[in-house]
Amino acid sequence: MTLHILFSAKAERWSDYETPLRAELDAAGLDYVLDCDMPSDVVDYIIYAPNAEMSDFGKFPRLKAVLNLWAGVEDVVHNETLKVPLARMVDQDGLTQGMVEWVTGHVLRHHLGMDAHIVNPSNTWDCTPPAIASNRPVTVLGLGALGLACAQTLASLGFPVTGWSRSLKDAEGVTCLAGEAGLTKALTAAQIVVLLLPKTPSTENILNAERLALLAPGAFVINPGRGPLIDDNALLAALETGQVAHATLDVFRVEPLPKDHAFWAHPNVTVTPHIASFTRPETAARVIAANIARGEAGEALLHLVDRSAGY
Amino acid sequence: MTLHILFSAKAERWSDYETPLRAELDAAGLDYVLDCDMPSDVVDYIIYAPNAEMSDFGKFPRLKAVLNLWAGVEDVVHNETLKVPLARMVDQDGLTQGMVEWVTGHVLRHHLGMDAHIVNPSNTWDCTPPAIASNRPVTVLGLGALGLACAQTLASLGFPVTGWSRSLKDAEGVTCLAGEAGLTKALTAAQIVVLLLPKTPSTENILNAERLALLAPGAFVINPGRGPLIDDNALLAALETGQVAHATLDVFRVEPLPKDHAFWAHPNVTVTPHIASFTRPETAARVIAANIARGEAGEALLHLVDRSAGY
Repeated sequence: MTLHILFSAKAERWSDYETPLRAELDAAGLDYVLDCDMPSDVVDYIIYAPNAEMSDFGKFPRLKAVLNLWAGVEDVVHNETLKVPLARMVDQDGLTQGMVEWVTGHVLRHHLGMDAHIVNPSNTWDCTPPAIASNRPVTVLGLGALGLACAQTLASLGFPVTGWSRSLKDAEGVTCLAGEAGLTKALTAAQIVVLLLPKTPSTENILNAERLALLAPGAFVINPGRGPLIDDNALLAALETGQVAHATLDVFRVEPLPKDHAFWAHPNVTVTPHIASFTRPETAARVIAANIARGEAGEALLHLVDRSAGY
Repeated sequence: MTLHILFSAKAERWSDYETPLRAELDAAGLDYVLDCDMPSDVVDYIIYAPNAEMSDFGKFPRLKAVLNLWAGVEDVVHNETLKVPLARMVDQDGLTQGMVEWVTGHVLRHHLGMDAHIVNPSNTWDCTPPAIASNRPVTVLGLGALGLACAQTLASLGFPVTGWSRSLKDAEGVTCLAGEAGLTKALTAAQIVVLLLPKTPSTENILNAERLALLAPGAFVINPGRGPLIDDNALLAALETGQVAHATLDVFRVEPLPKDHAFWAHPNVTVTPHIASFTRPETAARVIAANIARGEAGEALLHLVDRSAGY
């Protein structure tokens, strides 16, 4: 029987995704109709971006599952009209790889003190060598697919890496901690902190004034996870005192970051425009087609969201 | 019999090196006298920095070997008074690791287009995602200890890496090329070029106008090797046309780079003050002590310089 797959995202995404999705659905041997608009009573699967206009899943009587285009699900996971399985995007080749590149690059940037060379108006030749990675403890908060990949890459480069997650993980080369006491230990004396937690009620403002004070003086904060993980005012205060030397932030409570936000003007804050991890159509299409093929073969979908945990 | 080991480098280096050298020579079980000054007729080994005042090796009748503190030997290799084996510094834990960190950091910086975020006076939010590493060909010229380590680390991060060397090497994960035709192939369409060749007559100005023209338009040039590897005027011309988008240079014909040099003022040149690879006393002392212990045990020294090749 022909599957009906609805693509529900901002209109401009359809042109990016249509060709790669058809290629991957064809390659998976599926008999399907794919469109960004179709009668709701024929829809079997929805490929979904949480910023789509559509948010009432109750009108799709045949709906089998929703395949999220993003890693983050906080804007769809609590939708009460959604009664079918929800899978998040775990795109090893695009999303995860992109995140590893962005995180590794910015960790090395701060580790090496690059900014003083990139902007050096007085042409200062100061040949104090940077520390070596083994003397630069890095802590990664969150050990999901993204956090784990980043933590292990940083460890492979020689950084002593501590990873913290809600439930204890086991990752080769990474010191894994969990729980409240584990969080205190993970942050204490960390010189670089990378935030890759999901946004849930228990992670909101997890990096607050008290926890920022645990870091090594002059630490670097790198947030490619979710804006609300950080108490923005506490971060600005820690930047004022020098407790945090520099923050590099890719995600914000409001995006694009409003022009008048203090982060833009702050000399020790680098704003990147939510590019750390980006679902790339070619690789994401492969993940979605493979997951639909699993569903049709009667197998459980990969990367299912735990609706009670919220991620 | 007690060994006599002369430390011959700039005076200020003695205070950095004395303690770690004694610790490592003790650990190696050697019976020795170590000093920065001693009668020339008792000296068995010289630990040497090529910018030391001493350059007449003919006055040491008992000299067994010279242990260079630096990776580069161009300022000592042709010294005709030197008749004994010369070993270069290959310091995996300090020198090589530092180089890998610096090269990986600057490759990722250019790959991710970080500079546009670090300096963004108009607060532009442009969320065009960067390319993924697998779409960014990187070429490393030179596959000695440093070049090889950098090439393999970049390959492990997902970059397609081509390595070029005078004689053909074999390195897992790296496309190895050699010879003149190999050099043309290695540079053609490369988006990032890293120079890690030794300075010899045949590598001087190896990156000239003709070869710069082979690169992908808008390429990045990264030179942590030796200043004379690049024809500076050809590089400035390629920056003018945009053939080279940006050059990050750690080494120069004259160091410190003179204040009035065009590189300082150029918006698309980043100068770093010869910090990419730095002999760190703790790790270098271990390498030197181990090599002296080899010599005393009748084994060949490690990392011997081929005087005819010049490196």
